[in-house]
Amino acid sequence: MKLATYRDGSRDGQLVVVSRDLRHAHYASATASRLQQVLDDWNFHAPQLEDLSQALNQGRTRHAFAFDPVRCMAPLPRAYQWVDGSAFINHVELVRRARNAEMPASFHTDPLMYQGDSGDMLGPCDDIACADEAFGIDFESEVAVVTGDIAMGASAETALEGIRLVMLANDVSLRNLIPAELAKGFGFFQGKPATAFSPVAVTPDELGAAWQGGRLHLDLESILNGERFGLCNAGPEMTFHFGQLIAHTTRTRRIRAGTIVGGGTVSNKDWTRGCSCIAEKRAIETIEGGTPRTGFMRDGDRIRIEMKDADGASIFGAIDQVVRIPR
Amino acid sequence: MKLATYRDGSRDGQLVVVSRDLRHAHYASATASRLQQVLDDWNFHAPQLEDLSQALNQGRTRHAFAFDPVRCMAPLPRAYQWVDGSAFINHVELVRRARNAEMPASFHTDPLMYQGDSGDMLGPCDDIACADEAFGIDFESEVAVVTGDIAMGASAETALEGIRLVMLANDVSLRNLIPAELAKGFGFFQGKPATAFSPVAVTPDELGAAWQGGRLHLDLESILNGERFGLCNAGPEMTFHFGQLIAHTTRTRRIRAGTIVGGGTVSNKDWTRGCSCIAEKRAIETIEGGTPRTGFMRDGDRIRIEMKDADGASIFGAIDQVVRIPR
Repeated sequence: MKLATYRDGSRDGQLVVVSRDLRHAHYASATASRLQQVLDDWNFHAPQLEDLSQALNQGRTRHAFAFDPVRCMAPLPRAYQWVDGSAFINHVELVRRARNAEMPASFHTDPLMYQGDSGDMLGPCDDIACADEAFGIDFESEVAVVTGDIAMGASAETALEGIRLVMLANDVSLRNLIPAELAKGFGFFQGKPATAFSPVAVTPDELGAAWQGGRLHLDLESILNGERFGLCNAGPEMTFHFGQLIAHTTRTRRIRAGTIVGGGTVSNKDWTRGCSCIAEKRAIETIEGGTPRTGFMRDGDRIRIEMKDADGASIFGAIDQVVRIPR
Repeated sequence: MKLATYRDGSRDGQLVVVSRDLRHAHYASATASRLQQVLDDWNFHAPQLEDLSQALNQGRTRHAFAFDPVRCMAPLPRAYQWVDGSAFINHVELVRRARNAEMPASFHTDPLMYQGDSGDMLGPCDDIACADEAFGIDFESEVAVVTGDIAMGASAETALEGIRLVMLANDVSLRNLIPAELAKGFGFFQGKPATAFSPVAVTPDELGAAWQGGRLHLDLESILNGERFGLCNAGPEMTFHFGQLIAHTTRTRRIRAGTIVGGGTVSNKDWTRGCSCIAEKRAIETIEGGTPRTGFMRDGDRIRIEMKDADGASIFGAIDQVVRIPR
């Protein structure tokens, strides 16, 4: 099934079930009004929503309405945890190579993850508000999952079974703030403002054979100001699959229902596929020509992130955001 | 007023109002069942709770019961955001001096903060569960605040006005995991397991003159296995006050109601006051004698963290936790 959260003026919005083709939606209020409620008691609520989803897909509901992504908040407009891995080692390698930094061997066996702010998630069409273009505004096109409860010390295999939903993320990054911030030693803070998510979160069964071994084997498209910036496959080159990222998280703590886990900037070794963030393109330009040519995002710039299935149909709807610098 | 969350089997527990002397409590269910609800709509709910608090303090409620901190969850058992500053520069200085690391001048003007996991907070008397003593289990005695909504770009003064509640925290740290983790560059992750909070969160007016300029001018006591480990004043030596920590956070994003902001390990220049974590004591031992003598916490070790007012009365109740290593 496919789920979304409609804006209704409240902090958590209204849960809706969306048809497979993203054309229709139906309020889920007979089951639950908020997605977090469903995640809190998944085995009770999910079957009811599956029934509604089936009826909606078969055109059997009486109160369906046209689905409009612009009315969406993030599927979880505020979440209790957001952790993000940098699971595509190719991305890490490129960025380090561009600044002549060594790549520690451990990076191939020990996932790189950071703790993000989950208190204020952006909807798919919300503006990227930023005080200053000089911060170096960048997008990062990612796949993310939402989990149920997972115990401390869970194996990667057990962790995989705890994945409830899959969605897309734009992990907005302020590149020019990051070097000084990381040099302080405590990790990202101001450099990672609010993250945006796709209109729709889907259960893994909606992905069919493309969801395999904890990876989503499909192309993720990034379009910057109307031009394709990247079309990178999110599957085989994901060094650590989502079960491994979750297991890394649970080494010293349990995680609770509604935790969002990101897979990091999708990145492929084949440079003709383009990039899922500007920083990586700048790294390639630096490696090739000594200096980056592509600038970061400016006021009014637009980023669209989308993933299509084998038949060319959008799975999650598109993240479609414009940068707005307050004057 | 003083607020706490009673364990009731649910994820969020039941909100109770607690008497000033911590002897009695009353369910707040006529107003709200969960603390987050109150924070979401503070100006509507808080006056009702203040009335109940007043009645409780005057012995005028009919359904009051004896308050038992053991039945408490964290005031916010799960929160939407937890950020922690290291605002007592003396602590940072000591730890760095012990390992012969320079202290960057910017640390006196630019707060050091990290993003923590807010998805699973521990109650004041919950065990500290850890897979392995070898992780180097340490406590960190801190003061923390809970905020309302605060806009992006808020000044430190505006930020101070957004503080709704004050409480204590035990920011449990796994010292032996941290050096390798920070070396990876993305900040704390496995090294910061679930954080514990005091039984009670209080509105700033409960602190009287001790709450001044965004700092809490009282001694914070840490008792390890029945012996005093530290009695450090949380006021004058806090280099960045809570308004400054919040403003640092809002430079690139807004923060939403229910965000918890920690002030970091309370630390004083006067070494006779002891320490609010083991790592700092080990740093002092290293500076004095070349090598640390105090070990980290072992299975069964107990940490008690409490703050008393000028009359010797406990303000927040005690954090009182035992380390448990599963066998």
